[in-house]
Amino acid sequence: MKFKDYIASVSRSRGSRIILALDLSMLPRDEGFWSLKERAMKILSLVSQYICAVKINMQLLLPLGLYGGVSDIVDLAHDLGIPAIIDCKLSDVGHTNLWATKHYFEAGFDAIIVNPMVGWSEGVEPVFEVAKEYGGRGVILLTYMSHKASPESYELPVYVEGGFKPLYMLFAERALKWGADGVVVGATYPEKIREVKKLLGDYIPIYTPGVGFQGGDVKNCLDAGSEYFIVGRAIFQADEPEVAAKRFRDVSWV
Amino acid sequence: MKFKDYIASVSRSRGSRIILALDLSMLPRDEGFWSLKERAMKILSLVSQYICAVKINMQLLLPLGLYGGVSDIVDLAHDLGIPAIIDCKLSDVGHTNLWATKHYFEAGFDAIIVNPMVGWSEGVEPVFEVAKEYGGRGVILLTYMSHKASPESYELPVYVEGGFKPLYMLFAERALKWGADGVVVGATYPEKIREVKKLLGDYIPIYTPGVGFQGGDVKNCLDAGSEYFIVGRAIFQADEPEVAAKRFRDVSWV
Repeated sequence: MKFKDYIASVSRSRGSRIILALDLSMLPRDEGFWSLKERAMKILSLVSQYICAVKINMQLLLPLGLYGGVSDIVDLAHDLGIPAIIDCKLSDVGHTNLWATKHYFEAGFDAIIVNPMVGWSEGVEPVFEVAKEYGGRGVILLTYMSHKASPESYELPVYVEGGFKPLYMLFAERALKWGADGVVVGATYPEKIREVKKLLGDYIPIYTPGVGFQGGDVKNCLDAGSEYFIVGRAIFQADEPEVAAKRFRDVSWV
Repeated sequence: MKFKDYIASVSRSRGSRIILALDLSMLPRDEGFWSLKERAMKILSLVSQYICAVKINMQLLLPLGLYGGVSDIVDLAHDLGIPAIIDCKLSDVGHTNLWATKHYFEAGFDAIIVNPMVGWSEGVEPVFEVAKEYGGRGVILLTYMSHKASPESYELPVYVEGGFKPLYMLFAERALKWGADGVVVGATYPEKIREVKKLLGDYIPIYTPGVGFQGGDVKNCLDAGSEYFIVGRAIFQADEPEVAAKRFRDVSWV
């Protein structure tokens, strides 16, 4: 099954559009560092019935490693019936992108987040090729990020084909042209979600981080056209992660 | 010692501007995978007298892991008297950038390569702060990449402060404004090196990948203003890596 259909079916069956960003953050010298993986797996198990995917980033990848590290969390996700996304924001030249993508898919990840800034040829083309080779894994493109400085770059007016457009709309167009399985647009900029949704329609779902701690609101973004919501600290730092996850799930599915 | 001075002093003392990109590439199912680290360390030892730094990317980081994985290669680099750069092209929001940077520096890396696309506030600002905390580690910004599709994004004319400029010049300006320790401009676009050099003068050195396999030429780029040359496959895939490294060193230092 193609990733886009896989996550959509999990989302429907659980009535949830919530993706858990499992970004527990510790250094080796911190107390409890050696049980980091176990805690991450415990949280994932606790909340799994309320989410449609788990997303892993450098906070876990770097201390735990890939093979035998976060790959165990990916295996657990699959046992729990949900896909796993690696949020590496890949942003390199072709041969490095190719190898990074292969490693992530070998370790079991179902989708990868990529920076469209590098362009197609010798850029993201190998990522799409490897995703196909591995039986329809997902490629999700950064389009408008959720942090404060995001407008500094993403809103730059660029001159292409005889007219102006903001850089993020060019990235959204690339997603269509390249056949991406999703785009990332931050919850903190709901008007951008609306604009990107107008272009992508029902072809490419919008993944929205920045909900909760960063101030984004699920209801607003749902109205604007987001399909999935990425929530991290507001779930895993809660006293009862499963209660927090359920609350997010309930507002995400109306 | 600040990173910029550290690498400059190693470069002077060895008469080399060559940075080894140690991008050995294998999957776990490939024969010889379990000796990947040993082979990487052997190559580094063989060529160390001819290079001024080693650069590590996803090809080694993902299979070997960070702590107890590539951190052993970083330790070896330090024993051999050369700094180690992590080429993660960090491209995330502030709290992820913060944690990734901390992990890389905890593991011993002396400098980190970052994507200026994310902007300052809640973007690369935490990277610069952590670099300072860890005693003057280096922050190097992507400015113009070496691959075929690079112009697709980096040459986009952007409209800022009442005028047009290509996106890469905006990134070069950010390097100046943010006080970066280096910028990356691909060897395959020597005219861009010249243009960036005109802006940065002697304040910020230019790091140039794409020499050798990707077709870039050291002599051209040296004339154009590059300070350091990043060479990977043309060295480590050579029958005698030390001979190849020496040859690159000799043309880099005139």
